[in-house]
Amino acid sequence: MTTGIATLPPRTLMAAETRESPEVVARLLAANRAALAALGARLRARPPHVVVTCARGSSDHAATYGKYLIETLTGVPVASAAPSVTSLYAAPVSAANALVIAVSQSGRSPDLLATVEAYRAGGAYVVALVNDAGSPLAAIADTLLPLHAGPERAVAATKSCIAALAALAALAAAWSEDTALAAALDTLPVALERSIALDWSAATAALAGVTRMFVLGRGFGLGVAQEAALKLKETCAIQAEPFSSAEVRHGPMRIVGPGFPVLGFAPSDQAGADVAKVAATFAGRGAVTLVAGSGGVLPALVGHPATEPIAMLASFYPMAEALSRMRGMDPDSPPHLAKVTQTL
Amino acid sequence: MTTGIATLPPRTLMAAETRESPEVVARLLAANRAALAALGARLRARPPHVVVTCARGSSDHAATYGKYLIETLTGVPVASAAPSVTSLYAAPVSAANALVIAVSQSGRSPDLLATVEAYRAGGAYVVALVNDAGSPLAAIADTLLPLHAGPERAVAATKSCIAALAALAALAAAWSEDTALAAALDTLPVALERSIALDWSAATAALAGVTRMFVLGRGFGLGVAQEAALKLKETCAIQAEPFSSAEVRHGPMRIVGPGFPVLGFAPSDQAGADVAKVAATFAGRGAVTLVAGSGGVLPALVGHPATEPIAMLASFYPMAEALSRMRGMDPDSPPHLAKVTQTL
Repeated sequence: MTTGIATLPPRTLMAAETRESPEVVARLLAANRAALAALGARLRARPPHVVVTCARGSSDHAATYGKYLIETLTGVPVASAAPSVTSLYAAPVSAANALVIAVSQSGRSPDLLATVEAYRAGGAYVVALVNDAGSPLAAIADTLLPLHAGPERAVAATKSCIAALAALAALAAAWSEDTALAAALDTLPVALERSIALDWSAATAALAGVTRMFVLGRGFGLGVAQEAALKLKETCAIQAEPFSSAEVRHGPMRIVGPGFPVLGFAPSDQAGADVAKVAATFAGRGAVTLVAGSGGVLPALVGHPATEPIAMLASFYPMAEALSRMRGMDPDSPPHLAKVTQTL
Repeated sequence: MTTGIATLPPRTLMAAETRESPEVVARLLAANRAALAALGARLRARPPHVVVTCARGSSDHAATYGKYLIETLTGVPVASAAPSVTSLYAAPVSAANALVIAVSQSGRSPDLLATVEAYRAGGAYVVALVNDAGSPLAAIADTLLPLHAGPERAVAATKSCIAALAALAALAAAWSEDTALAAALDTLPVALERSIALDWSAATAALAGVTRMFVLGRGFGLGVAQEAALKLKETCAIQAEPFSSAEVRHGPMRIVGPGFPVLGFAPSDQAGADVAKVAATFAGRGAVTLVAGSGGVLPALVGHPATEPIAMLASFYPMAEALSRMRGMDPDSPPHLAKVTQTL
């Protein structure tokens, strides 16, 4: 199930930065241990009525993952901030007893900063998961949890997204005192190391010539499905669209017919079983289904269902990087894109 | 700018039901006036800390629209319920001082009912926007706002989605006592009537042969962009993917090149201006851009920026219905789909 690929020198920034993920996660968990314990104690003593996540792009996919973990482990509803409300409509926010979780690699996006500032002015407590600890976002946080991913030079985020996912899981574990999740996080660096080396060449072979596809997840796996879909667009020019395995039944599956490619992330829980079930239905119609986990064609480690999706992403990134090159593209230089997007 | 199409007998259920939208909206606004006034007074007297929307498919796109309206007009954060949290993970919910807004045509989806029941048991106040007033969802609501759309027989929802959008705008207007929005709603039936007759044949011509495209919105127009993308999948087998004009800059625009089709909903506010701006950038790369409003090629009525997207949707549905037939499909019978989806 493993290849020798991890022993060769990486050909691209994307490959090199993906390989740094295990040490990044080990570093951020160690460095933030005390801050997370203090934050967890604070949240248990004064539980917020609502959590509001603020993020864009890959960081927003990590926020989706955080939503499922926080809602599942604490029951507190998690809203995704609509930056337009602040940046375009200049609306006031009712933020008393709200916990804001801002996730960003650069910590410099103007609309993100405007939204976080508005919530903070309204009385919210702000936690920032940010890679650049010298950024404006880091400066306005009540609790700063640096991602410790080091400089990320590839346009396509990899290690910073894995770091954000791990940091959100650590936050949820610290808040809920979930010891099983905390234990799974301690072994995550090793799982990432092994996952990067898993052989996903069945996917590169199947996706070599496609222009459109679906990526499925549900529950803890949905955010990773969103992230994989974005990477397939950015690095491979495939219109990969993410869906929960529940939502895909409400209309989108109309276009899944013979030869239509479907990638599914299926961790070892009921949500993963549902992804595998929908994929099997689509395979019955002749779709090309590539499922990670749950007995699918793409190998995946079995551990805790909340950390398995992060490990699957560590297998996915090298596949996308190889697929990009196979399609004659440069994964490090997608046309039209810059590393930091200045949305107003 | 108008065609004679509305004077011909409709060829399909989808066309016939779209044409009922003006009278549906007039009926639901009149029938729910007292209930909305009472609900508005209650929400002003005891403002919730969080609003949680529960919906799937087209109803969830209406919920996206409701999120922007409620956050903009009241400042209260709006979370989209993740039904998996209740139905798959059996997690508890912390729902004290939460307002749940459930939106459904049938009021019978098991995962939706389970989620609403869980929030209600946790102390939330439940408002149901439901077309079938005899449904289980209607029975458990604290405030029931029937959509009054009558039986909807086409698989592709049209009049029930327009009804849900109008009902959410009416709810937001009643809560915030926004008289401009209330006045715009009073004229919405007439705007819908006129919008159904607008000539969007530039879009049918441009989309006759495409397999993939983007649909853009932002702010008040984002939910309608999501709904249009779903309809293009269901009725035309086009993989149309919705994005906010902010989010599309974070990677997805990588795949927008010469000939790539982009449909944009651009109401007469800053959000609409941003949609038009991104579309112009894409047109500069050779993309085929179809913008409704803001001087785009697709005619749209100018009124209140919060109700313009509903009117645009009334122009879009007949275009999608005609495009489906032009592509040799039956818009009333998409393969694989049933009217009510039983997600567990």
